[in-house]
Amino acid sequence: MRTIAVRTEQRSQIVDITRDVQAAVAASGASGVAVLVYVPHTTAAVTINEHVDPELLVDLADGMERVVGDSWPWRHDDADGPNGPAHLRSSLVGGHLVVPLRDDGELALGTYQGIFFCEFDGPRDRSVHVSVLQ
Amino acid sequence: MRTIAVRTEQRSQIVDITRDVQAAVAASGASGVAVLVYVPHTTAAVTINEHVDPELLVDLADGMERVVGDSWPWRHDDADGPNGPAHLRSSLVGGHLVVPLRDDGELALGTYQGIFFCEFDGPRDRSVHVSVLQ
Amino acid sequence: MRTIAVRTEQRSQIVDITRDVQAAVAASGASGVAVLVYVPHTTAAVTINEHVDPELLVDLADGMERVVGDSWPWRHDDADGPNGPAHLRSSLVGGHLVVPLRDDGELALGTYQGIFFCEFDGPRDRSVHVSVLQ
Repeated sequence: MRTIAVRTEQRSQIVDITRDVQAAVAASGASGVAVLVYVPHTTAAVTINEHVDPELLVDLADGMERVVGDSWPWRHDDADGPNGPAHLRSSLVGGHLVVPLRDDGELALGTYQGIFFCEFDGPRDRSVHVSVLQ
Repeated sequence: MRTIAVRTEQRSQIVDITRDVQAAVAASGASGVAVLVYVPHTTAAVTINEHVDPELLVDLADGMERVVGDSWPWRHDDADGPNGPAHLRSSLVGGHLVVPLRDDGELALGTYQGIFFCEFDGPRDRSVHVSVLQ
Repeated sequence: MRTIAVRTEQRSQIVDITRDVQAAVAASGASGVAVLVYVPHTTAAVTINEHVDPELLVDLADGMERVVGDSWPWRHDDADGPNGPAHLRSSLVGGHLVVPLRDDGELALGTYQGIFFCEFDGPRDRSVHVSVLQ
C-alpha cells in the first residue's frame, strides 16, 4: 500500500490525482489485475470523471452542495465543526475506487477519464492509499 | 479483462447487463474471489438493484434527474454539449462494482439483485469492462 | 466468503458493523491486500463514515430521505410495497466497499472511519458478505 498526499485549498474542491495514482502503481513495482484507490477520511471522497474541462470540476463541487444542502437541519457538531453535509457528500460519492489494469500495467481508464480527489471540508492536508489487487 | 458492448436508446436509461457480466466471467475461464465491473465513460455508471420490476428502472432513471437537476446553473459545455448533470449523476452512482464469486464460480448476487448499466447522456454505444479478482 | 447478520429496527437506520467485519476477516484466516464488503439486498447499502458521534448517523439517515424524496412520483409497487425511494437510496450510497488491509492484516481504516450498514427499508433481517482479496 502506497500513500499519496493531497493539499486542498477550498471548502469543496475536486482535484485531479490521476498522475499520482499512476506513479504510485509504477513505484509499487507490483503487477496485478486492478488498482484500489482509498480515501481514509470521512469528509472527502474519490471519483472518476472527465479530465478535460476545468469548469466541469467547479460544476461537480457546486452540484454536490445542491444535492446535499447546507441549510438542512443537521445535528452533528464536533471538534471540526458542524460539517454534517460534508459527511453525507462523502458517503454519496464514496471513498474508494477499483480501476482495472491493462496487460501492459497501465490503468485501463477511458479516453476522457481521470481520477479525482473530492474535498468537501477543506482546506486540509489529505491522504489517499493505493494498492494493487491480483 | 473482457469488454461488453451496450447500446442505449434514451437520454437516461437503466439497462440490465447481468447475463452479459455472467457470460464474460464464464468466457474468461478464470476462477477468483470477486468480479470487477468497470465503466470507462464519464456520463454513465453501473449499479446493482432489483431485476424484477421494469417500472423500477424508470423510477431510478427519473429519480436521478431529480437528485441532480438539469435546471441548476452548469458551466460545462464542450464537444458533446452542456451535459454537466450527466457527469454528476455518473459520479454519484459510480462507475465500478465489485461482486463476490461463490465457490462454484457464480456471482454471489442476492435473490432480487441484477447488475445495471446506467446511461445518463444517451443514446450512445457504450463499453463495460469485466475482470476477475483473486 | 463469510456472512454477517444485521437486524435493523427502523425504516432508515445507519448501523456500525466495523467490529463484525474485522471479526469476519480474522475468522477467515486469509491474508490479503483488501477486504470486499458486499450487501446482497436492493434497499440497503454499506458506507464508510465517522464512528464517533451517534448524532451523525441520524443526520446521514435523515439526509438520505431529503436527497431522495418520498413524495416524488414513484411507479414501483410490488410485494414489499411502494419502496422506490429505498431502491434509489441504495444505488446512490452503493452496496459494496473495498478497504485495504495493512501488513499486519488489520483494516487500513482512517482514525475516524467506521463501516456502516445502511438500512433504507427496515426493519428487516439483513446479510453482509465479507471476502478477502489478494
